[in-house]
Parts: sequence; structure tokens; C-alpha cells
Amino acid sequence: MDRDALKRAAAERAVALVEDGMVLGLGSGSTAETAVDLLALRVAAGLDVVGIPTSERTRVLALRLGVPLTGFEAHARIDLAIDGADQVERGTLNLVKGLGGALMREKIIAASAQRLVIVVDDSKLVAKLGGQTALPVEIAAFGWPSTIDRLRAAGHRPVLRMAGGIPFTTDGGNHIADCAIDTIADAKKLDAALHGLPGVVETGLFIGMTSFVIVAGENGVEELTS
Amino acid sequence: MDRDALKRAAAERAVALVEDGMVLGLGSGSTAETAVDLLALRVAAGLDVVGIPTSERTRVLALRLGVPLTGFEAHARIDLAIDGADQVERGTLNLVKGLGGALMREKIIAASAQRLVIVVDDSKLVAKLGGQTALPVEIAAFGWPSTIDRLRAAGHRPVLRMAGGIPFTTDGGNHIADCAIDTIADAKKLDAALHGLPGVVETGLFIGMTSFVIVAGENGVEELTS
Repeated sequence: MDRDALKRAAAERAVALVEDGMVLGLGSGSTAETAVDLLALRVAAGLDVVGIPTSERTRVLALRLGVPLTGFEAHARIDLAIDGADQVERGTLNLVKGLGGALMREKIIAASAQRLVIVVDDSKLVAKLGGQTALPVEIAAFGWPSTIDRLRAAGHRPVLRMAGGIPFTTDGGNHIADCAIDTIADAKKLDAALHGLPGVVETGLFIGMTSFVIVAGENGVEELTS
Repeated sequence: MDRDALKRAAAERAVALVEDGMVLGLGSGSTAETAVDLLALRVAAGLDVVGIPTSERTRVLALRLGVPLTGFEAHARIDLAIDGADQVERGTLNLVKGLGGALMREKIIAASAQRLVIVVDDSKLVAKLGGQTALPVEIAAFGWPSTIDRLRAAGHRPVLRMAGGIPFTTDGGNHIADCAIDTIADAKKLDAALHGLPGVVETGLFIGMTSFVIVAGENGVEELTS
């Protein structure tokens, strides 16, 4: 199977967990969008669910495909969220997310979900978080140069993410600092330190938020549990 | 002296610290606005400063009074910030801020300031933070019902701040949860716990950010240092 077919097979495994009547968290990024595609097929066949999207992009996709949407004002709890990740740490199943720019919404949905299922291809599996992949940190638009200074002074090597010559803006109106952090030895400590810096709104570290990861690899689909 | 005259005398003491060439943080709330009034008089008399406002309200006031403004894009460091507070803890000079709704911007400016001077009347002095005064916590607009749930589940007794029948929105586009927390025994620990909840953007706890508080009391103006 080629890479896309494998991702689709992994996403299928996640969507198979969806049951009638569920409130779903709909993730962002290419794998999560594949899951929305597959979900739409089940909805067309009669599945009765509502979704809360993690990004404007996923919201538009879901609407276009006929997946009914809702909001937290109607449902404060989510039964099942399906999302991708930029890194998955073997063993702990801690994640780095946010390269797509939707990290705060993704984290709010993950935290509100009874169950978070992550779908990735095996290039995302790492022994330790950090290293090659930058850690996205969502920062307030107001005063971002001072927040970048604070991140730099704390040794986190931030780079302001740009789009079209101006700072990239998240759906929440914030910016993203991509931090070139070496291998992350203690994710919990790093997360707390980042949150302690004024101007930091959310971090891309998802610690202890999932216990189920579906991985598309060369030899098929693998399931990791913690 | 009446209460207003005393507040004015205290604000005057803070504005006397301003020197030519300084970049200033301009606070929000009635006492901070009095300081902007007094600063404008010095600017009219030839003082050469620029200010970064902590709120849209203060921005408009400063422009109206002729105080030149700048932004973090031009100056990432602030020489002196003058602001008010909702509570000042004797001894530590830790603060609760944000009843005015500008807490994230106020904290970013405070963290970027070489020196933060707080001006309050003596009704704001407390032995311990918390108690009668709610702790404002800035939360993302997205998913606020789930964030309120998380705050409630963690025992922080949140009330969503409303304005005109809809959730109050900060200058940064977020909402405010006013948390009816009992006397705060360990401000640092509480701050870290709140920051750890997905959806929490910033807290009204200002810990170790000021070493100089000017207090307007019945018997005149008092200075507290830590």
C-alpha cells in the first residue's frame, strides 16, 4: 500500500470507533481530514453524530461534506475526539501538536473528550519529544516581540511563524512561536515553565491526554496503548 | 483630603518617577487613568516619553490627552510601568489584577517593564490574596463552557463575567472567569495549577512582579517596598 492508502486505513480504524449519538471532536491536519472524509461517508449512510471542529479549516470541510456540527455552548463534553499529531512519544504517548496552527483549540477539545484517539504515520513516532521537530507555542498577538524575548531569554530558541510576510494568526487571533528545543527530557516541567511566561497562551505539549494511537506504517496499521 | 484627592496625590508620586526619554507602560483602571491625566500635564510641559497602553480604553484616553503612544514592535522593553491593582498582599507585594478586564495585556506589560509601580488606595491592601475579591482568569472564547467546567471541577468556583447579556470579551478576544477562591495560601502553586488547565489563557495573579507600591490612605500617601 502507498503512504496515502495506509493513512486512510489508519483513519478508518479510528472512525470505526464512532457510535450513533456521539458528540465528536474533529481534528485538523491531513490525517484528521481523512478521518472527516470517512466519517462523512458513514453520516451519509445514516450515522447520527455531531462534531465540534478544532479549526476553521476543518469546520468548512465538515460542513461541505455534510457532517453536522455543534458547539460547546450545546455540548460541554465530547465522547470521542479524533486528531493527528506532529510527534508521538513511544511509551508515554505524550504528543507534540500545533504545526498546523490549531493547537489551543485542539487542546481544549482533547481535554473535553472522554477519549482522544490519535492517528499518525510512523514518521511521527519518536523515542523522545523535541529534537528535529519544533515545539509550537501559541502566544498573544499583543506584545508578541516581548514574549519572543522572554522565550529567547529562557533558552527556548523561538522563531515567530510567518505567513505571507506577516505573523501567522491562529483561529483564536494569536501568533505561534516555533521553539527549536532539544530533546525534551521532562515534558511536564517544560510545559509549566512555558505557561509561566506572560504572553504564552498555550503550548503544543499534550501530556497524558491520549492512551490510544493508531499508526500507519510500512507493514500496516499498528495500535499503541499506554 | 477626600478619597479622590488622595488617589491623585498617590498617582502624582508615581508620575514623578518618569524621566525624559522613557518608554512607559500605561495601566488601566481609575487610579492608572489618573496617572495618565497627570502624565499628560508633564508631556504638555515638554516631557519627552512614549507609552504603551494596557487597554483600548487607556489607549483612547492617552491619545485624547496628547500622550504619544508606541507599540512593542518598536520597543520590546519598557522602562517604567504604572498601573493599579485589585488586591495588594502586604509583605510579598503579590497582586490580584484584572477586575477591569485587561489582565493579559497588563501582565505582558508588567513582565516587559524594568520597573512596575503600583498605585492603589488602602482598601486594596490585604494580609492574604483572595477571600472577598474574586480572582479573574482570562479564558479562550473557544470552548469556554468546557473551560468553566474544568475550573469548577478543580474547585475554583468560576463565574463567567457577562456584559450586556453576553460573555464579556477582553481586548484580546477572550472571556473572563471570576473565581471565588478562598484565601490564597500559595499563589505560585495556584497560578501554575490554573495555567495547566486547557483554555486558561492568563491569570490575575501577579507574583513577584513589583517591588514598589504607592498607597493612598486616610493619613496620606504611604510607600511599600519589598
